[in-house]
Amino acid sequence: MPFTLSGRAHQMTPSTIREILKVTERPGIINFGGGMPSPETFAVEAMRQACDRVLSRNGRAALQYASSEGWPALRQWVAQDLLAQGLKVDADQVLITNGSQQALDLIAKVLIDPGSRVLVETPTYLGALQAFSAMEPQVVGVACDEEGIDPGDMRRFAKGARLAYLLPNFQNPTGRSMSPMRRAEVAEQARAAGLPLVEDNPYGQLWFDQPPPPALSAHWPEGSLYMGSFSKILAPGLRLGFLAAPRSVYPKLLQAKQAADLHTAGFNQQVVAQLLQDGFLERQLPLIRAFYRGQCEAMLAALEAEMAGLGVRWSQPAGGMFLWLKLPPGMSAAQLLPHAIEQGVAFVPGSAFYAHQPVPETLRLSFANSTHAQIRQGVAALARTIGQHLPGQVRPQQACPA
Amino acid sequence: MPFTLSGRAHQMTPSTIREILKVTERPGIINFGGGMPSPETFAVEAMRQACDRVLSRNGRAALQYASSEGWPALRQWVAQDLLAQGLKVDADQVLITNGSQQALDLIAKVLIDPGSRVLVETPTYLGALQAFSAMEPQVVGVACDEEGIDPGDMRRFAKGARLAYLLPNFQNPTGRSMSPMRRAEVAEQARAAGLPLVEDNPYGQLWFDQPPPPALSAHWPEGSLYMGSFSKILAPGLRLGFLAAPRSVYPKLLQAKQAADLHTAGFNQQVVAQLLQDGFLERQLPLIRAFYRGQCEAMLAALEAEMAGLGVRWSQPAGGMFLWLKLPPGMSAAQLLPHAIEQGVAFVPGSAFYAHQPVPETLRLSFANSTHAQIRQGVAALARTIGQHLPGQVRPQQACPA
Repeated sequence: MPFTLSGRAHQMTPSTIREILKVTERPGIINFGGGMPSPETFAVEAMRQACDRVLSRNGRAALQYASSEGWPALRQWVAQDLLAQGLKVDADQVLITNGSQQALDLIAKVLIDPGSRVLVETPTYLGALQAFSAMEPQVVGVACDEEGIDPGDMRRFAKGARLAYLLPNFQNPTGRSMSPMRRAEVAEQARAAGLPLVEDNPYGQLWFDQPPPPALSAHWPEGSLYMGSFSKILAPGLRLGFLAAPRSVYPKLLQAKQAADLHTAGFNQQVVAQLLQDGFLERQLPLIRAFYRGQCEAMLAALEAEMAGLGVRWSQPAGGMFLWLKLPPGMSAAQLLPHAIEQGVAFVPGSAFYAHQPVPETLRLSFANSTHAQIRQGVAALARTIGQHLPGQVRPQQACPA
Repeated sequence: MPFTLSGRAHQMTPSTIREILKVTERPGIINFGGGMPSPETFAVEAMRQACDRVLSRNGRAALQYASSEGWPALRQWVAQDLLAQGLKVDADQVLITNGSQQALDLIAKVLIDPGSRVLVETPTYLGALQAFSAMEPQVVGVACDEEGIDPGDMRRFAKGARLAYLLPNFQNPTGRSMSPMRRAEVAEQARAAGLPLVEDNPYGQLWFDQPPPPALSAHWPEGSLYMGSFSKILAPGLRLGFLAAPRSVYPKLLQAKQAADLHTAGFNQQVVAQLLQDGFLERQLPLIRAFYRGQCEAMLAALEAEMAGLGVRWSQPAGGMFLWLKLPPGMSAAQLLPHAIEQGVAFVPGSAFYAHQPVPETLRLSFANSTHAQIRQGVAALARTIGQHLPGQVRPQQACPA
């Protein structure tokens, strides 16, 4: 072929999750693999009315080219909403992005040179690894515990690093959250080392019993980029996310946005701004939270009931969409997956989420998008599969090289 | 600030056009500067009905995460539509992008290393220069004539270049088009040199009297990337464009898309696929073409009437949205602009569109987005401004260093 690929293109790989999902999308498979919110939480009728109103009132303006920064009313709403998380930003520090994934792309372009060091949690969001790796950094997975990143280990790698990427609330993939104390410590260490923080918060609104503590960024606003999303509280199919950035770096992120796609769909932004008027989310969010809490409880109950005696451990998330499982030592979730699929259930092996040195025993389950009956049935199928493949029972033809 | 910018971020600059547009958006200015289609061409009511239908019939699915490749029915429509331009691609070679600007970003990521040579027309689309420059290429502006790129000059720079970026139909900014003969020559030279072609065709459907010749890519499909857009035939506020690529390079473009923003808004894609059913564009496009032809004729007539004796020359486009003017030798459009704005009319100086060695006498006028009365009035104001600043009449305090 006449095409000469760039160095970064050679490093690109297909999304492991998207490849797995293709396999598992066949009918009859109970899919705990995807990171999709439940469509039951989508306010379809309210969206339909908002579309109707935007197009009826001033449709031509909504369908025209728009500003790269975003629709003013939506930026204003975001700035106002962030106050509840202790984060004070003006609307002109908010950049509306094509889903929060695009914020990762813009940040990577603006802050990462080939070989730049970038710190991530262990494990971390796979999509961030993909977005960053396009700019060819050296990615360092920092040690983590149940509260997220270890501030001491972060300090070891901080000097000269371009950023640390953190998900403080109901992390994808582990479901874990950072305590207020840990946030303060991490921000303090970052500030001392001059290490910019990238705080990604797609799940923060999906809490079960109490809202998460103030944003990590609130501890060090001048050094933090904050990413949010409408995908989990309204609908991912609109592709609306945002970035709040200090004034020192905002103009460069904006220029990267202009070069990337000129602007985010103005129609979608106006529809969502319309929808958010008059306290829509204040009515909608309690329903969404109760829904996901019920989903999580159903999966935890199923795990309690089905996994007894198998040596499997799992997280106890306080919000979000994910549970993190650890199989007995020596088992490989990646090797288990085809057998689980045979039994009618799918998950994502944890190895996809590690920058390096994956822990083969780990796997991610989403409780977001299955019925309670499917959750019971799927967890039972998973337990059955695990039981059949416990280390002592592995038959030779099933033991593949790592 | 704690942020260390990447090398590419240091090279990023604000969009000249967007900066100019901010100044010219104040009321009372007749704006020939923007590249915006006329909102009179937007089928708002049809769009409203399509939104309604998509959300009423299967709203939850339309609002969920979607595939990175794009909505199947829309990809199918694109593949079918390209046949009319002599381009045979399968739907699975089509990637739906967030406006065609994103296609430039994806191509740049996949094909450009720092220092890679990239060939562009002289002058060329400013947004392409922005998207490419983020990946730090060496951009070479190839000599052009009234038909576009000079195949001989292209050959001089072809060896080792990663791509040549070309707009064969009603080019932005000049309005010029490539003849069938020139397309064949360019494709032949590119094939012989192993030089990939990137064909950008946002304006091809906006022809006045006859459709443009078959696509440049049709002459060398294995070596060509073809970019199209719904922005000028439906509405830019939906941010829908597309890329058709040979199978040899498609997977890498898809991976770049996944990393950039996961996927293009599925809701928007379904709305447009709904709208395109049943021959909607076959009814709509003749109206749009007639509208722009009328706009262009009005501006040409005004130029004929107002510019007499000033030594100004202009293009005679056969479609699209733009006219290209050349002021008398020694005049600078950039220096003229503030005076024109004082007289109530704005344009974009041509210098913004050159990779290097800008021709200061050039400027771009859009005839898309003004009433006929505004066109007459604005062209008269421009002629008056030019007349007051002809080289012999420039007063010392207005002559700035280049």
